Amino acid sequence: MKKPTLDTLAAQVGVSRQTISNVLNKPEKVSPQTRQRVLAAIEAAGYRPSNAARALRTQRTHTLAMRLSNAGDGINGAVMDGFLHALVTAAGLRGYRITLFTAADDSAELDIIREFRDSKAIDGVILTDTHAGDQRPNAIHDLRLPVVAFGRPWDREGEHDWVDVDGAAGVAQATRRLLDDGHTPVGFIGWPDDTGVGADRYAGWARATGYSADQQRRYSTRQLDSPVAGGEAMAKLLDEGVTAVVCASDSLAIGAFGRLRDKGVAGHVVGFDDTPVARMIGLSSLRQPVHEVAKHVVETLLGRISDPEGEPRHILLPPTLQARTVASTS
Amino acid sequence: MKKPTLDTLAAQVGVSRQTISNVLNKPEKVSPQTRQRVLAAIEAAGYRPSNAARALRTQRTHTLAMRLSNAGDGINGAVMDGFLHALVTAAGLRGYRITLFTAADDSAELDIIREFRDSKAIDGVILTDTHAGDQRPNAIHDLRLPVVAFGRPWDREGEHDWVDVDGAAGVAQATRRLLDDGHTPVGFIGWPDDTGVGADRYAGWARATGYSADQQRRYSTRQLDSPVAGGEAMAKLLDEGVTAVVCASDSLAIGAFGRLRDKGVAGHVVGFDDTPVARMIGLSSLRQPVHEVAKHVVETLLGRISDPEGEPRHILLPPTLQARTVASTS
Repeated sequence: MKKPTLDTLAAQVGVSRQTISNVLNKPEKVSPQTRQRVLAAIEAAGYRPSNAARALRTQRTHTLAMRLSNAGDGINGAVMDGFLHALVTAAGLRGYRITLFTAADDSAELDIIREFRDSKAIDGVILTDTHAGDQRPNAIHDLRLPVVAFGRPWDREGEHDWVDVDGAAGVAQATRRLLDDGHTPVGFIGWPDDTGVGADRYAGWARATGYSADQQRRYSTRQLDSPVAGGEAMAKLLDEGVTAVVCASDSLAIGAFGRLRDKGVAGHVVGFDDTPVARMIGLSSLRQPVHEVAKHVVETLLGRISDPEGEPRHILLPPTLQARTVASTS
Repeated sequence: MKKPTLDTLAAQVGVSRQTISNVLNKPEKVSPQTRQRVLAAIEAAGYRPSNAARALRTQRTHTLAMRLSNAGDGINGAVMDGFLHALVTAAGLRGYRITLFTAADDSAELDIIREFRDSKAIDGVILTDTHAGDQRPNAIHDLRLPVVAFGRPWDREGEHDWVDVDGAAGVAQATRRLLDDGHTPVGFIGWPDDTGVGADRYAGWARATGYSADQQRRYSTRQLDSPVAGGEAMAKLLDEGVTAVVCASDSLAIGAFGRLRDKGVAGHVVGFDDTPVARMIGLSSLRQPVHEVAKHVVETLLGRISDPEGEPRHILLPPTLQARTVASTS
């Protein structure tokens, strides 16, 4: 069969070429009845309008945009790479593609998103690396673009959609596990409070231990993220008699674990993110459910595209403890 | 100033709305002179046609598509994740976006690429994970889509563009380094020959050592990729008196290194890919120049988009040895 064209379609339906073009490009100029007849004929004939023509017609591109965050040190970046794989898969199952771009900072990210909006290149935006004072959700809302964040707004409840992992619940679970196994005191190696994630994970430890303010101060440390910092933190906690710790990241945990091993101290370390490095050295770690997060991100964003005015959705998913015995230095 | 519309533009240039629409959508129906006048007016007025309208006009989407390969075990996947970050950055600098999709196999990948082509959604394709008997480059060429591969066609020179890393040269360099340091014999732990990459890396070792066929057989092993397999391979090579090895991957190297350490044997192990795990445990490793690869992939593909009939380009880049002394078990 010859590929149908606007002309053959027009002849078949008994309307002008212009009417068919109008149905595709300016549907408001065509009566609903004619529109239905033309669309039915198009479908029956297998006429396949190009993506670009379809985008003009439906104002949908079936494309979602996400800034690719920095690769980092390859330890903590592993979670975002896992999330990206899960996201592309989840979006693909719904007929959506993920378009990636890089940006130096939030402001450059917003510039690119504005450009996408102006050129009608995307249907929605996925944000990651949310932080206190984050201007992006409101700015994107003002652009009238649907947006969902992987990560909470840390300074308020937020009027936009977000999906996040309940770090506090995970740390509390790991802490209780160490306490139940007879470790005491159980320490915490985390990040400064000025990162929302850091404060959240610390809170999970404080809640699970029930330690006094003085004990909290003695049995925890807060610093930037690196194996070296984790090792130094473990040295300080060892002086307080702490041999079992929960860490805010695998980077910190790897350093803490190395310090225990070097000192020949029996103990136990739990990391966060269940990275390949943690799996390789047999370190217990809290795993973020990236596949579930990705699925909820896609469903929430597609829901928002269909219903721009609906109530905001906030979804918090618990991490799971991957307990490994090899990493115990005892 | 009011946002220019088709009507204000038409009035200004003194042509009909339809003519302006034709300039954007069916430029062949408009005389070159009129077309220039309309385009100049559009530009002067700051009229910004949507991405979709621009795509119809220029037949360019400024979008390149790539299948996201499986995440793997998080060790070997690290290189592809590093390449993806570099690719998005390199494409962004040229005003191009990367659209990602997943596919179960090559055939499903081709189905999706065909769909992209039919809907005019992309300007070109980036292939990864090339292998002997790979049908994809020719199939995509038949779709008249520009394509470039990160990876050689292993069974022929190839009539399509590709960029690859010279694994043989890297392994030869590492092997010579171990020989120069006084290790002898220097062994090799690799993959079966039925993977082109495996045969290539083996060839680099054979070339650098100059061993006889019998020595090659005794001082090398070939098996599937995992730390466990690397440990077993090292055990076999130890029986042949080999304590220094170059491995086809960090997975194999990690296992080999663990075996040397467990046996308390002084030796040296070099891996391939310089993964986070290798860096963490201080293992020497060959690093693939993913940023250079990404830059060449983007430049080659954009060159092919501009010049579909030009000579095929084949670019081979050497890896660099990241020598670390900590990983020596001596």
